[in-house]
Amino acid sequence: MNKVQGEPISILLVEDNVDHAHLIMRKLKSFQVANKIIHLEDGEAALQYLKTAFAEHNLPHIILLDLRLPKVDGLEVLRQIKTKPEYMEIPVVILTTSDTETDIAKAYHLHANSYLVKPVNFESFTELMEILGFYWICWNKDPFRS
Amino acid sequence: MNKVQGEPISILLVEDNVDHAHLIMRKLKSFQVANKIIHLEDGEAALQYLKTAFAEHNLPHIILLDLRLPKVDGLEVLRQIKTKPEYMEIPVVILTTSDTETDIAKAYHLHANSYLVKPVNFESFTELMEILGFYWICWNKDPFRS
Repeated sequence: MNKVQGEPISILLVEDNVDHAHLIMRKLKSFQVANKIIHLEDGEAALQYLKTAFAEHNLPHIILLDLRLPKVDGLEVLRQIKTKPEYMEIPVVILTTSDTETDIAKAYHLHANSYLVKPVNFESFTELMEILGFYWICWNKDPFRS
Repeated sequence: MNKVQGEPISILLVEDNVDHAHLIMRKLKSFQVANKIIHLEDGEAALQYLKTAFAEHNLPHIILLDLRLPKVDGLEVLRQIKTKPEYMEIPVVILTTSDTETDIAKAYHLHANSYLVKPVNFESFTELMEILGFYWICWNKDPFRS
């Protein structure tokens, strides 16, 4: 496996469902690649976090973004990320319960890197977290970790 | 696993290395999801293919794109895909031997959905094809297959 050594991988998880967030974090932390997960529960906090992280040269390597979020909606968070030169290169994976054609098309139109629908079944959810982790943490190259 | 039933998944593979192309196609075809792979060896042929496929309402679900391509370079193919409203929502995964920071940054800047570096080792290459297939064919939602 193409493991990344050294520098921890930082993941920004924007998710208002606390149960989902715990499950996602538990699974992602189990990877052998050292990783740091920042969990925020609304869109406004996510945008504020990115602003500070950019100023501190500490942007996350990957963003996992729910769509239905308090304060600022996930699609608006995505739009702001993908239209700002300082953030636009960060891979954003949408992780949501919505599988409507409209949401999927809107997300890709706003340059989401990938769109995943949370399975309702616990085992499938766990399986998806595993493959998501392998793919984005172990294999995908991001601009801050080439 | 979140398998897609019915309609075959079509993948456009733009790859001038015939050995790599055969390996990729063999592995992707082994998935239980019926899939059709269109293999083209240069960037010009890929752009021409997309033009015809759009006219015939038959665009591919996913594009796997090498960077070093004859006739039209992979980054230019990517730019044209991601700036044309008719193609921009198709997920494009870069699959290349280049792991330079410049190529990675340029690809994300042009809205590549993901960037993978081909491992030189045969076993790792096979492992990557497997995870790529699972992720993009079985789990990721694309705008044409929600």
